[in-house]
Amino acid sequence: MTRSVGEDLSRAVLARLDGCSDARLRTVMEALVSHLHSFVREVDLTPEEWSAAIDFLTATGQACTARRQEFTLLSDTLGVSMLVIALAQARTGDRSNGATDATEASVQGPYCLQGRSDCPLGTDIAEGVRGEPTFYAGRVTDTEGMPIAGALLDVCSGDGTGDTPMHAHGRFRTDDQGRYWFWSVRPAPQALPADGPVGRLLERAGAHLNRPAHLHMKVSADGFVPLATQLFVAGSDYLDSDAAFGVRDSLIVDFDRHEQGEAPDGRRMRKPYWSAHYDFRLAPVHD
Amino acid sequence: MTRSVGEDLSRAVLARLDGCSDARLRTVMEALVSHLHSFVREVDLTPEEWSAAIDFLTATGQACTARRQEFTLLSDTLGVSMLVIALAQARTGDRSNGATDATEASVQGPYCLQGRSDCPLGTDIAEGVRGEPTFYAGRVTDTEGMPIAGALLDVCSGDGTGDTPMHAHGRFRTDDQGRYWFWSVRPAPQALPADGPVGRLLERAGAHLNRPAHLHMKVSADGFVPLATQLFVAGSDYLDSDAAFGVRDSLIVDFDRHEQGEAPDGRRMRKPYWSAHYDFRLAPVHD
Repeated sequence: MTRSVGEDLSRAVLARLDGCSDARLRTVMEALVSHLHSFVREVDLTPEEWSAAIDFLTATGQACTARRQEFTLLSDTLGVSMLVIALAQARTGDRSNGATDATEASVQGPYCLQGRSDCPLGTDIAEGVRGEPTFYAGRVTDTEGMPIAGALLDVCSGDGTGDTPMHAHGRFRTDDQGRYWFWSVRPAPQALPADGPVGRLLERAGAHLNRPAHLHMKVSADGFVPLATQLFVAGSDYLDSDAAFGVRDSLIVDFDRHEQGEAPDGRRMRKPYWSAHYDFRLAPVHD
Repeated sequence: MTRSVGEDLSRAVLARLDGCSDARLRTVMEALVSHLHSFVREVDLTPEEWSAAIDFLTATGQACTARRQEFTLLSDTLGVSMLVIALAQARTGDRSNGATDATEASVQGPYCLQGRSDCPLGTDIAEGVRGEPTFYAGRVTDTEGMPIAGALLDVCSGDGTGDTPMHAHGRFRTDDQGRYWFWSVRPAPQALPADGPVGRLLERAGAHLNRPAHLHMKVSADGFVPLATQLFVAGSDYLDSDAAFGVRDSLIVDFDRHEQGEAPDGRRMRKPYWSAHYDFRLAPVHD
């Protein structure tokens, strides 16, 4: 019986959108109403559960500040962010030709700082953020492998110990051969914030909040589709159970350990360090 | 192609709920994730639209105060509140035996005051709220028509002119024959708040925010399922397009106009007044 309750109501709500002159908004709202009503009907949602949902959504909105986006956290942990990213990349990239695909995208970090000015190539962006020193290097090319000079890289990673909110952050521009290099720390696994409504819901649902060791990277250049992605440390814990569902095989990077000595950029390292190499491929913008 | 993008991801998100020991929570979360992903995939939601949705949800949460519940407003105007109510009543009532059904429920007013003490029967609760005086009377019975003495009625209506936030509010207990009577104003159509994120969304979607003239009623008694409903003024504007989808035919009440003179409770009225009669039927609680 439940399946048919309120069907007239659902039709009436959809009919209310007949006056919507924005065709795309109407399409989105109609699908939203249809799925929302189907969900409520399918689980036979009780008034007490509805009330708990209203309270949850309200608390989630009120937990948002300039430095915390609890709804993005909800979207990330329900896999919605990653689904939107996958759909966007399916639209812009030709997924059929393997090797020349653009670099895969991943969820944007909600906690990265903005607006810092460009750093010279080779800068150490760790600046007091703890962790083992790591030399990052690679190239930015188009999907045919041609280097892109002057591409902007915006790098952000958490503390390399995983237990403080410190971030290493820097912006770089590739040189005339499309190369970039800089120093930072080796990332550690990190837990998403557990002290808000989303963390408490996930805990009740038996899902953990841990993310594998990762580094956020935004890469952009004129004439190319901007890329927001993450690099993941090969062998890290939680690679197969990222709480934000952001891992893709193509984004897992080997970190190589080196003894003290001269690093690839000539820097004299008096203790062991790591290196990681990754080449980014940007898709051209199609008019 | 869009239809199949991210299907592995959707399965991974669902699999993350395998550890949920609360069977009901798991059922609800699985259905939520399935419908949410289906919605995103079906409309091929863009990153820009996703970002607008995050901003909308955040603003909606942040518009909530002790006196305003913007997520309830969203739920009401998308018909979700009324759907939950219809499902609840389908569970508690036997909908097959017509005349002896319990009174139909409707959406709860989010703006009613709470905690006022009982008023003597016959009290005028208008107290400065503008509008034409109206004598309300009726009985509270069980679904067999047997009167319920001492049933609690909690009454709330907006200003009778529809243009101020004043509310007439009072609580009454039925007498030993299950009767109630009181004075208030005749309700006027009212608009839901248009100055928040929900109002702005509905305006863009071409849906109006008007509600037909109505009075909120909560009726409860020991051993019976509590009822939250509304009475609607017959002939009011917006009866066929309530922005909150709360109207049911059985809740539309004739308001009769009377010339000055002695009212049914003996009160001498020096100007014309209205009367409205409604009998409430409560469903017994089944153990």
